[in-house]
Amino acid sequence: MKEIVIINGPNLNRLGKREPEIYGSETLDDLEKQLRDHANGREIELDFFQSNSEGEIIDRIAEASDQGVSGMIINPGAFTHTSIALYDALAGAGLPCVEVHLSNIYRRESFRQKSFTAAACDGVISGLGFYGYIAAFDYLLSGSARRSR
Amino acid sequence: MKEIVIINGPNLNRLGKREPEIYGSETLDDLEKQLRDHANGREIELDFFQSNSEGEIIDRIAEASDQGVSGMIINPGAFTHTSIALYDALAGAGLPCVEVHLSNIYRRESFRQKSFTAAACDGVISGLGFYGYIAAFDYLLSGSARRSR
Amino acid sequence: MKEIVIINGPNLNRLGKREPEIYGSETLDDLEKQLRDHANGREIELDFFQSNSEGEIIDRIAEASDQGVSGMIINPGAFTHTSIALYDALAGAGLPCVEVHLSNIYRRESFRQKSFTAAACDGVISGLGFYGYIAAFDYLLSGSARRSR
Amino acid sequence: MKEIVIINGPNLNRLGKREPEIYGSETLDDLEKQLRDHANGREIELDFFQSNSEGEIIDRIAEASDQGVSGMIINPGAFTHTSIALYDALAGAGLPCVEVHLSNIYRRESFRQKSFTAAACDGVISGLGFYGYIAAFDYLLSGSARRSR
Amino acid sequence: MKEIVIINGPNLNRLGKREPEIYGSETLDDLEKQLRDHANGREIELDFFQSNSEGEIIDRIAEASDQGVSGMIINPGAFTHTSIALYDALAGAGLPCVEVHLSNIYRRESFRQKSFTAAACDGVISGLGFYGYIAAFDYLLSGSARRSR
Amino acid sequence: MKEIVIINGPNLNRLGKREPEIYGSETLDDLEKQLRDHANGREIELDFFQSNSEGEIIDRIAEASDQGVSGMIINPGAFTHTSIALYDALAGAGLPCVEVHLSNIYRRESFRQKSFTAAACDGVISGLGFYGYIAAFDYLLSGSARRSR
Amino acid sequence: MKEIVIINGPNLNRLGKREPEIYGSETLDDLEKQLRDHANGREIELDFFQSNSEGEIIDRIAEASDQGVSGMIINPGAFTHTSIALYDALAGAGLPCVEVHLSNIYRRESFRQKSFTAAACDGVISGLGFYGYIAAFDYLLSGSARRSR
Amino acid sequence: MKEIVIINGPNLNRLGKREPEIYGSETLDDLEKQLRDHANGREIELDFFQSNSEGEIIDRIAEASDQGVSGMIINPGAFTHTSIALYDALAGAGLPCVEVHLSNIYRRESFRQKSFTAAACDGVISGLGFYGYIAAFDYLLSGSARRSR
Amino acid sequence: MKEIVIINGPNLNRLGKREPEIYGSETLDDLEKQLRDHANGREIELDFFQSNSEGEIIDRIAEASDQGVSGMIINPGAFTHTSIALYDALAGAGLPCVEVHLSNIYRRESFRQKSFTAAACDGVISGLGFYGYIAAFDYLLSGSARRSR
Amino acid sequence: MKEIVIINGPNLNRLGKREPEIYGSETLDDLEKQLRDHANGREIELDFFQSNSEGEIIDRIAEASDQGVSGMIINPGAFTHTSIALYDALAGAGLPCVEVHLSNIYRRESFRQKSFTAAACDGVISGLGFYGYIAAFDYLLSGSARRSR
Amino acid sequence: MKEIVIINGPNLNRLGKREPEIYGSETLDDLEKQLRDHANGREIELDFFQSNSEGEIIDRIAEASDQGVSGMIINPGAFTHTSIALYDALAGAGLPCVEVHLSNIYRRESFRQKSFTAAACDGVISGLGFYGYIAAFDYLLSGSARRSR
Amino acid sequence: MKEIVIINGPNLNRLGKREPEIYGSETLDDLEKQLRDHANGREIELDFFQSNSEGEIIDRIAEASDQGVSGMIINPGAFTHTSIALYDALAGAGLPCVEVHLSNIYRRESFRQKSFTAAACDGVISGLGFYGYIAAFDYLLSGSARRSR
Repeated sequence: MKEIVIINGPNLNRLGKREPEIYGSETLDDLEKQLRDHANGREIELDFFQSNSEGEIIDRIAEASDQGVSGMIINPGAFTHTSIALYDALAGAGLPCVEVHLSNIYRRESFRQKSFTAAACDGVISGLGFYGYIAAFDYLLSGSARRSR
Repeated sequence: MKEIVIINGPNLNRLGKREPEIYGSETLDDLEKQLRDHANGREIELDFFQSNSEGEIIDRIAEASDQGVSGMIINPGAFTHTSIALYDALAGAGLPCVEVHLSNIYRRESFRQKSFTAAACDGVISGLGFYGYIAAFDYLLSGSARRSR
Repeated sequence: MKEIVIINGPNLNRLGKREPEIYGSETLDDLEKQLRDHANGREIELDFFQSNSEGEIIDRIAEASDQGVSGMIINPGAFTHTSIALYDALAGAGLPCVEVHLSNIYRRESFRQKSFTAAACDGVISGLGFYGYIAAFDYLLSGSARRSR
Repeated sequence: MKEIVIINGPNLNRLGKREPEIYGSETLDDLEKQLRDHANGREIELDFFQSNSEGEIIDRIAEASDQGVSGMIINPGAFTHTSIALYDALAGAGLPCVEVHLSNIYRRESFRQKSFTAAACDGVISGLGFYGYIAAFDYLLSGSARRSR
Repeated sequence: MKEIVIINGPNLNRLGKREPEIYGSETLDDLEKQLRDHANGREIELDFFQSNSEGEIIDRIAEASDQGVSGMIINPGAFTHTSIALYDALAGAGLPCVEVHLSNIYRRESFRQKSFTAAACDGVISGLGFYGYIAAFDYLLSGSARRSR
Repeated sequence: MKEIVIINGPNLNRLGKREPEIYGSETLDDLEKQLRDHANGREIELDFFQSNSEGEIIDRIAEASDQGVSGMIINPGAFTHTSIALYDALAGAGLPCVEVHLSNIYRRESFRQKSFTAAACDGVISGLGFYGYIAAFDYLLSGSARRSR
Repeated sequence: MKEIVIINGPNLNRLGKREPEIYGSETLDDLEKQLRDHANGREIELDFFQSNSEGEIIDRIAEASDQGVSGMIINPGAFTHTSIALYDALAGAGLPCVEVHLSNIYRRESFRQKSFTAAACDGVISGLGFYGYIAAFDYLLSGSARRSR
Repeated sequence: MKEIVIINGPNLNRLGKREPEIYGSETLDDLEKQLRDHANGREIELDFFQSNSEGEIIDRIAEASDQGVSGMIINPGAFTHTSIALYDALAGAGLPCVEVHLSNIYRRESFRQKSFTAAACDGVISGLGFYGYIAAFDYLLSGSARRSR
Repeated sequence: MKEIVIINGPNLNRLGKREPEIYGSETLDDLEKQLRDHANGREIELDFFQSNSEGEIIDRIAEASDQGVSGMIINPGAFTHTSIALYDALAGAGLPCVEVHLSNIYRRESFRQKSFTAAACDGVISGLGFYGYIAAFDYLLSGSARRSR
Repeated sequence: MKEIVIINGPNLNRLGKREPEIYGSETLDDLEKQLRDHANGREIELDFFQSNSEGEIIDRIAEASDQGVSGMIINPGAFTHTSIALYDALAGAGLPCVEVHLSNIYRRESFRQKSFTAAACDGVISGLGFYGYIAAFDYLLSGSARRSR
Repeated sequence: MKEIVIINGPNLNRLGKREPEIYGSETLDDLEKQLRDHANGREIELDFFQSNSEGEIIDRIAEASDQGVSGMIINPGAFTHTSIALYDALAGAGLPCVEVHLSNIYRRESFRQKSFTAAACDGVISGLGFYGYIAAFDYLLSGSARRSR
Repeated sequence: MKEIVIINGPNLNRLGKREPEIYGSETLDDLEKQLRDHANGREIELDFFQSNSEGEIIDRIAEASDQGVSGMIINPGAFTHTSIALYDALAGAGLPCVEVHLSNIYRRESFRQKSFTAAACDGVISGLGFYGYIAAFDYLLSGSARRSR
């Protein structure tokens, strides 16, 4: 059975509580529910992971690589813009991967324009809210997903 | 009836002929066919437009704004990185809009990392090939699409 | 009889429709009417030209140079900040010329602070709305206008 | 009765003596005379002020704000490019204001391209010589002048 | 008897009148009153000085150094970001000194992020309003104040 | 009862052992004792937290937000200059907050001049040693503290 | 029969009229005549194309690629320094190509030092006037010309 | 007995699995075995530590400082380029230390050229594979090792 | 009779008191005495001027220009690095002029490396202490001094 | 009789041995032979010079200037990008000169994009292999060669 | 028999005389003696070369390449940071090579942080004094040395 | 007997022949004669040295250091702006030294504004022509010359 790992980075556990004018009022649980509903009836295991710790996220990516999962969806939050270690982890994992951002990072502060992690993913979806995760999910299950790097 | 305008910018008429190791061997006609197949059975008019001229693309966006279409999907090609006029046109149109790139621009030359146009769109999908257009289409038809700007 | 060419660049055909909080609610036709009213009774031909195409604007400048008109008023819109070709066209035309911007570009995005074209004009009026065109017109008819470059 | 304050910054007392190939041979007294002639017959008090001291200019702007004058015309000279304190003074004054430069700063040294003060004015007129002051005057008396900031 | 000199730089005489959404509605007199109340009963002379002139502030710092005062509190206003001469004056004075800003300069324009003067002070308090002056005062009277530089 | 959380970031557990010429010879326990002495007799709970892990600090800030504490004092150590995730955590917490640095960061390496976190705090106190924490504490208990962001 | 396409970009139709101190007094017709004279007696078709429009030049390059011509000589004028779209067109064409500039761009404004298009050509000849086109022509007919990219 | 601590940072637990074309096919266990073989017969305790967490590495360095070990060998992985906190930890530890990189960072991406941590070490060995650790070990046991900082 | 004006800028009145490890223990009076001794017996009037105010220095330069003095020696202190207005004043004066710095500015902070004023002088002498003024004096009296600009 | 000096800079003596995938397998002797064959029958003396020493190349250029040769062809190799002294030598020589590069420097590392020397030559030919020398030779013998600078 | 060439660049002949606080008091002869002692008993020829001339070092590298030596150890001194020609020479030589610096360049001036030459070597050892040469020697004799580039 | 070494760098042997509008028409021999005349009657040996080779100049500085001469006057020509090796040589020599430039480098190209070598000299004299050498000579013989560095 196929397995997709969904990784959410720092402060995403605060979704719905934090700056709702940017990130909306729905929570991470709502996201999980929407994705499970979307996957419903298909033979796919969804594994959700959230951490505020760069090290734990790197550990989880390595684990996913060892498990040989079918794909990863990652929203690295602010680590997107600062973490070369996360880029290395993703590049070393060799798995199909899509980076997702809830908000459109091109409309935000200049320090959010740079993405270290995106270059280690198949592609990036930014600004489409929860729908970005669903589109990433569908992409990974389509025939066109590549092994990243 | 809803109408979605799909705008492809410079050199995208060469799709399938030009640098297939980056852009694949399928053509713009293949893209149109895939999108029409995807939309099939729904009450949506799809309007495809391609031009190598910045001015003609600005004209087409203004026209779409006057028509009050439901949404735009735009792949501005190289204009993404250089055209403030296109940014102004999109920002002035006030329409839901998704920017799409076939390749993952974060894996390419540094001069392709900057996007002027993205800040005038709801969001950006980059690196997912033709699937990016389909995801953009589904997003625009979902309830969550916003008026850009 | 003297002839003044007034050139408006990309997206200025959308004046009154586009971002009225920045550009106001009056249209390009209103501008033309105000200028013609202002010129009224004087032996001056006013020639208005608007295009979203950089190439067509360059063509029009060359034509004005061949016609030996008395002066040009140009609002290059977003081309101000990106077009070296327009700078070359203006510098090559050898005509008195004033660059006009409706909004005060010093209050806007950092990418609007640079002007390629201004260095090929006699001077620049920015932020005074339609009045900027009228002041440019009066300047060109005063004795002090120079041949640009 | 309306009152317009005209402030000229450092070295403008040397007009006519200093670098005439850039600034012309007319003096500040000539400018005052031309403006008074232009205003002639209208109920407007013109108050001319020149100083080489940043502090005195800030003092004069504060005084104008307290007097509630109708508008200011300021040529901050070289302070344009270096003085944040002058920007603060203008922004804090809350008066309609036009920045004027005799020469076209876009044709000069790169360190003259940046203007701190312009962002605290309604707009800028650059490169039109004494005519720039007259146009600024007319603008301030027109109905369209805004309170700066 | 100990003496503390409180120096306020350009535009701070306009406190309460200028941009109250940033600086609040209290005036410099209110600040003086609050500090005198706070010092009340202690053997300390408070000497308030405000000027919009960089030169006069430098003169006052030199005078304080000659007087051998116990400490200085300085809010250099916009000179913070532009004046190397003020940095030299403070560094040359050899007095305990605290730089104070009413607003949080890290939340403001990028040109307010740089401080020349801070490196010649013991430390900086920014964003705490009038309370910043009181905290600076208490610091200077505590045993831990150093001679700056 | 009011509660103030004091968060100290990486390497501050080494205070008194590490580079005493910069940070002094007192330890974090000394700081806690001084603050508790200062608070003595007031109905305030002080909660001290130190971690070398960015993730744990983000967790603690989220917890403080859920607890609805009265304010936070944070010395983010080196994370000040590198962590956008911490900025997001502070901005999302919506609590009154003061950033404190023992040393004057303006006198140190250029890479310590930038603060990501400061823009999510009410203000910053830098260079006043332990006194900075006491001043921050007093500020938070004064009436003037704001909810950050 | 071999075919060489010679493409001249914006403002080169003004050759001989525009800034003769930089570009000389000969016209584009003179260039065409000299190249035809030079080619005379050889079985080569020369196709001259000039446009001020970026889009039309991209169209012409695509057409040349479809025709499978033997080589291109391109003077992109000011587009050299600004057009990534032209770079993409040349790179996608897969034809031997030489970039030519009449003047020595290394002696001119700093904004003319950068060439986007050169990296998609076999090489560049700059500063040798009309002779540059003749040398490019001879190079393309020599055995050593490569397919660009 | 002397003790040397060998610290490996993020993603080095993946050695031999991750990007073998850059890092080779040997694992961290192989490295440990080679170093123990090299040390064999000498009175030296080798202590190996790997973590993907910046905080845990800082903790381990502090511990080593308290233990008063003879020296440290550290490969900070991607933290080399981003972690000021790690620099502070090393500088504060006051121990002889050599930074080691398996690959030659000068041949890699530009964001790997900068090292924060190197300035807090005695020196750096880059590009010599596992041999770099052996050379660092020999250096630390030679008489010439200094206390870092 | 020839007249030489010696202008000393901000903080130079503190010479001998301020940072003697950089500037030495001699005062401005000592300098004046040394220069008068050096000039002794020659028909030259020496006029010394010191101010901490940029505006007063500009006034003094204008006055020197009107007086038609033989030359100026100027040590603009920190204004060297920040004042375009002083550059304009010197350039506009049209007098032979030498810029002098007591310390070698190339050995100091990076913000002291840039000189706005030097480009408006015949030349610069830096790092030779009081001797620099004497050499400047001799230069101005030699036949080779030029009118600046 | 006319004389042309051909100067080849550092590492060009290794042509044919060094990085043949960039520079081809032909040697400097092959180049000399091709140029002599090309010149055959014409009254021109060809003088070849190669050195890895910047000083010797400067000496040779000075000698050529004293000899009053008809022109120079120079491939400064890596000195192109770093040597202001070579720029000075060429500018001071006052001879017609063409800079040649075997490879297209626009396709290579960013540090090869800058040319100091080009601004002291008539023009530059880059990327056309040995043919570039032949074209430079023909240019120098044509009537259009200028004295450089 | 194997041969190792040790190349020392500019000013290294002054070792022991020049800035001993940075480079120690041992001389280049001491280094040679230590390396010969270390090699003693092994069938290896050591060839020492020092020059202050970039050209002579390039010559020596070319010679080593022709000789087909087993490896090079190079301390390019200040040429490390400025010489692209040396980079080209090393890259063209195709020999195993280690770059050595006596001091830790990461602790020195910012202009010493960049190394052109390192990218053409197997690796770099910096800050370990003479031991760096010995480690480089052992590396070159180990089985793991690669041909550079 | 005292000895002063005067070192002139690249292209200064061309003085009087090269760009006389910048450097004047006098030659290096004229300079030598003027300096010898100036020194006449004093017990000083003057040693003139000119080279276009960076290596030879470094050699000469080392020799001067070994000789223990009284001082050096150096005009490093274009090496001023590019040679860290020359900086190292001067810093290592430990001799009183003055850097001299004939022209005012602040009035020339931006790449001539930076001086590596100046920071290793007592001071710099720029723009005073031959007089600069004479002033440097007098300075070195005065009591105030320091050992550089």
